[in-house]
Amino acid sequence: MDTKIAGAIIIGNEVLSGRTQEANLAYIGQELDKLGIKLTQATVIPDIETTIIDTVQIYSKEFDYVFTTGGIGPTHDDITSGSVAKAFNKKLIRHPDAVIAMERYYEPGQLTDARLKMADVPEDAELLTNPVSGAPGFQLQNVFVLAGVPNIMRAMFDLLVPRLIGGAPILSASVSTNLGESQLADGLGKIQAKNVNVDIGSYPYFKKGKLGVNLVLRSTDREQVKQQFDLVKQLISDCGGIIQDEFEP
Amino acid sequence: MDTKIAGAIIIGNEVLSGRTQEANLAYIGQELDKLGIKLTQATVIPDIETTIIDTVQIYSKEFDYVFTTGGIGPTHDDITSGSVAKAFNKKLIRHPDAVIAMERYYEPGQLTDARLKMADVPEDAELLTNPVSGAPGFQLQNVFVLAGVPNIMRAMFDLLVPRLIGGAPILSASVSTNLGESQLADGLGKIQAKNVNVDIGSYPYFKKGKLGVNLVLRSTDREQVKQQFDLVKQLISDCGGIIQDEFEP
Repeated sequence: MDTKIAGAIIIGNEVLSGRTQEANLAYIGQELDKLGIKLTQATVIPDIETTIIDTVQIYSKEFDYVFTTGGIGPTHDDITSGSVAKAFNKKLIRHPDAVIAMERYYEPGQLTDARLKMADVPEDAELLTNPVSGAPGFQLQNVFVLAGVPNIMRAMFDLLVPRLIGGAPILSASVSTNLGESQLADGLGKIQAKNVNVDIGSYPYFKKGKLGVNLVLRSTDREQVKQQFDLVKQLISDCGGIIQDEFEP
Repeated sequence: MDTKIAGAIIIGNEVLSGRTQEANLAYIGQELDKLGIKLTQATVIPDIETTIIDTVQIYSKEFDYVFTTGGIGPTHDDITSGSVAKAFNKKLIRHPDAVIAMERYYEPGQLTDARLKMADVPEDAELLTNPVSGAPGFQLQNVFVLAGVPNIMRAMFDLLVPRLIGGAPILSASVSTNLGESQLADGLGKIQAKNVNVDIGSYPYFKKGKLGVNLVLRSTDREQVKQQFDLVKQLISDCGGIIQDEFEP
């Protein structure tokens, strides 16, 4: 069973200006991992129609699944839905089920024209439920259009999972040690060379003024992860390091 | 004075798998803003040589400045320097000044072969000082190659600022209110249409169970920001909202 690949498009000037800390990518990556879908690229782009159209077209061809976040609210800078429609040469239509979904969330008379704009989705799109604030996202072909606000995005993502056909889930093992990564570098390189199916990542950190490194092994094959993990732990011992925070699948 | 544009390339499997929360982009965006350089796109890519080469080549052509983070440590998965060298058809050489810089940070005998790998940079590259852990980054043409660990990346970035020629700094004003963004959407659209030089962003939030919205105005022209800001505050009042956390340049 092959691992499927996904791309994420983070839409919003505020992420690029640094006003907003990007807070959706890690969640998407982690949740896809559990499903055997590998997030292999992400891009952060501004709220510019041509940029959204181009990026959606490229990503839709390149990846099994594409997730966009941001730009589906009611204001003038929310142009994602219209741009995705244009990327697929679709009209933007007011979806009756979206209107119904939103009516449940608003008091009578509160569903203004501005809010109703959030019921506009590309023709042929399927709605994605938003259990937090009503206004839905949508799926068009392999592109899933989600909100940018993290708690809404996560709720929408969790509910769309049944639409995704994953591959073998990616398993990981990790261990941290008080050694510097340079001390382990040669040995790690040799262990990695022994089995390229198990990806070994080395992530140095400073904690409370002390240097250390997290080593993370990832593969779809549990046995191979375990074999390589034993070699990594042996290497740490051989180098005189202390094994901390060990975790294996 | 035109605003210069920049792109960022975030390199690392760990950011895509969600193991590591991306933590450099917001800093880069904010600091560039102060210099009149607009970060207009960022991409997150895995530690794969061909992907790094392709992305660096595209970004180098497209942007005035390019910043990469991650992948310049001593281990087998640190392939950024070699990949950037290949992107520009340069050899990777051991830079004598990098060796000297690193000798200052290590006890005698501790500058192992693995660590010395961090002194390898593309031919014709200029070193970028790393005041935290010694091993330098480098500049090759318009590409700045920085560490991925946030405190090291920030220190390196701060020291490279004199190498950047900015444009007019981007000024911003912001105000938050207890209204939903839908209530402001029509009025905001009209204010935006009055002056496209001042970019107006609308960012809804939930805080302690209450809905609100941050409105952010950005432009290189202080007078125009102020004029538009006054209109936005008037709109909030007209819609019956309370003005909170107001900030203007």
